[in-house]
Amino acid sequence: MNWIYFFDLCGTAVFALSGALAAGKHRMDPFGVIVLAAVTAVGGGTIRDAIIGATPVFWITDPNYIAVILATVVACLIFIRKPYKLSNKSLPIADAFGLALFTVIGAEKALSLELSGMAAVVVGLITGVGGGIIRDVLCRQVPMVLRTEVYATASIVGGISYTISLQAGMGSMTALSLAMLSTLIIRLSAIHWHLSLPAFDLKTKK
Amino acid sequence: MNWIYFFDLCGTAVFALSGALAAGKHRMDPFGVIVLAAVTAVGGGTIRDAIIGATPVFWITDPNYIAVILATVVACLIFIRKPYKLSNKSLPIADAFGLALFTVIGAEKALSLELSGMAAVVVGLITGVGGGIIRDVLCRQVPMVLRTEVYATASIVGGISYTISLQAGMGSMTALSLAMLSTLIIRLSAIHWHLSLPAFDLKTKK
Amino acid sequence: MNWIYFFDLCGTAVFALSGALAAGKHRMDPFGVIVLAAVTAVGGGTIRDAIIGATPVFWITDPNYIAVILATVVACLIFIRKPYKLSNKSLPIADAFGLALFTVIGAEKALSLELSGMAAVVVGLITGVGGGIIRDVLCRQVPMVLRTEVYATASIVGGISYTISLQAGMGSMTALSLAMLSTLIIRLSAIHWHLSLPAFDLKTKK
Repeated sequence: MNWIYFFDLCGTAVFALSGALAAGKHRMDPFGVIVLAAVTAVGGGTIRDAIIGATPVFWITDPNYIAVILATVVACLIFIRKPYKLSNKSLPIADAFGLALFTVIGAEKALSLELSGMAAVVVGLITGVGGGIIRDVLCRQVPMVLRTEVYATASIVGGISYTISLQAGMGSMTALSLAMLSTLIIRLSAIHWHLSLPAFDLKTKK
Repeated sequence: MNWIYFFDLCGTAVFALSGALAAGKHRMDPFGVIVLAAVTAVGGGTIRDAIIGATPVFWITDPNYIAVILATVVACLIFIRKPYKLSNKSLPIADAFGLALFTVIGAEKALSLELSGMAAVVVGLITGVGGGIIRDVLCRQVPMVLRTEVYATASIVGGISYTISLQAGMGSMTALSLAMLSTLIIRLSAIHWHLSLPAFDLKTKK
Repeated sequence: MNWIYFFDLCGTAVFALSGALAAGKHRMDPFGVIVLAAVTAVGGGTIRDAIIGATPVFWITDPNYIAVILATVVACLIFIRKPYKLSNKSLPIADAFGLALFTVIGAEKALSLELSGMAAVVVGLITGVGGGIIRDVLCRQVPMVLRTEVYATASIVGGISYTISLQAGMGSMTALSLAMLSTLIIRLSAIHWHLSLPAFDLKTKK
């Protein structure tokens, strides 16, 4: 489990960074930045744990998550000089890794509690996209996740892939790699070629 | 309990539909539509279960709820042609039925855990209006529930009616019918005659 | 514990008042006012209890909290004539007392469950600022807590002070007074002299 735990902390740092950057666009004070970074990084997992009854939630019993968030925010406040360049290039890619990993971790946690495969997919989705939704709501935006960006889609496919692979008898590491790969391919393709699924648009229909 | 369970799934479908329609007004992609439909349909019950400690929450252990939501969204994406006509006429009425039923189901769940009558009313209210509030927040609107539409009011009256009826010794089915009737009468009257309680308006007071 | 409990109910009333005033600025109907006052008053503690697994959450098992909220809203609807005067002068000061107290109560609850000191600070912060964040989100504003108002800062310092004081062997009452004092001094100074920490502002950097 060491690799997964290490990746999990990396994912936490990436999502904390995306929260801190969003905070910087709204001129928040340093502790406001910490709060927004934190809800973005652990919001999805917190909702997951509250919903499945895994309380106290994970970051309460393991202080490393908060430590990673604090370190990320401090580094961010000190070093960031060209945020928009970072934001436009590196961040969505790192964010895709976070999404892929958090989806699998959420699904895994659900399955380890012997929940159904369908529940595992939904719990993985909540873990992957929950933090970003809270971040966008606090910044008064219609959540990016819900719009035409193939974001929820990538998480759902990853969760389904992970659950099916396990049920087909694959090893845990193979299933994890396969699931992360499907999420990453979908999401990175969408970013690179600006793909989007056809929107459900009620405005154009009279 | 079969009738209640059947009604519960109907209420889930109605709220999923209202979430899907809201998603259509914001041009979301199909999986975004699923997410918004789902939080609208099971958001209130999820908050309820997390608050009273009934975890894992209901839709995790019973896959029928997610199945109903998926079926509703698929039907919605395929068949809906005149959403605004539907939205203006049928939806608020169906929504009122969902509100009435979810209120009673929430209050019943609280009472079955031996919580106080006052808690049952509040838990019923949360179950009835929670999903709609999350839907409106995600779509960047001041929740309809909070504005002058006699919405929260109808749910509170229904919850009080259900709790008092039971405490007065009425049968479960009688209390349920009475409570749903009070919520429905209030809400449908408000819709039909555009009733609203006098608003608490601090802007006009200098 | 009697004093703390009494203060807790006072803090509940103050936050309920701030929710009711916010509702008045958005022309909500009386039951909408109750809902907004309630989420503001008990929202932070509810998230806290759901996260640490102290369910059913506090206001479900103790009806006094809902009673205090109802009484506050009724008094508010009847008596308030010059809300803006109240809002500009007395409310932020009362709100600072509520913040100071809720922070300590949250941290205390975490420590009583033998959680770590770091967790106690975060749980105190959530208790102190959670309700205000929900209030602002429902009213479609970027939460006041996150902006340049030294608000989260005051809560974090209070939580750290409380935790360290207890670990240094101080008595419960001394630690509580010290922590509330630090929060109050920081927050009231910020209000009085319009202090703010330098904002993290990514817009000005090209």
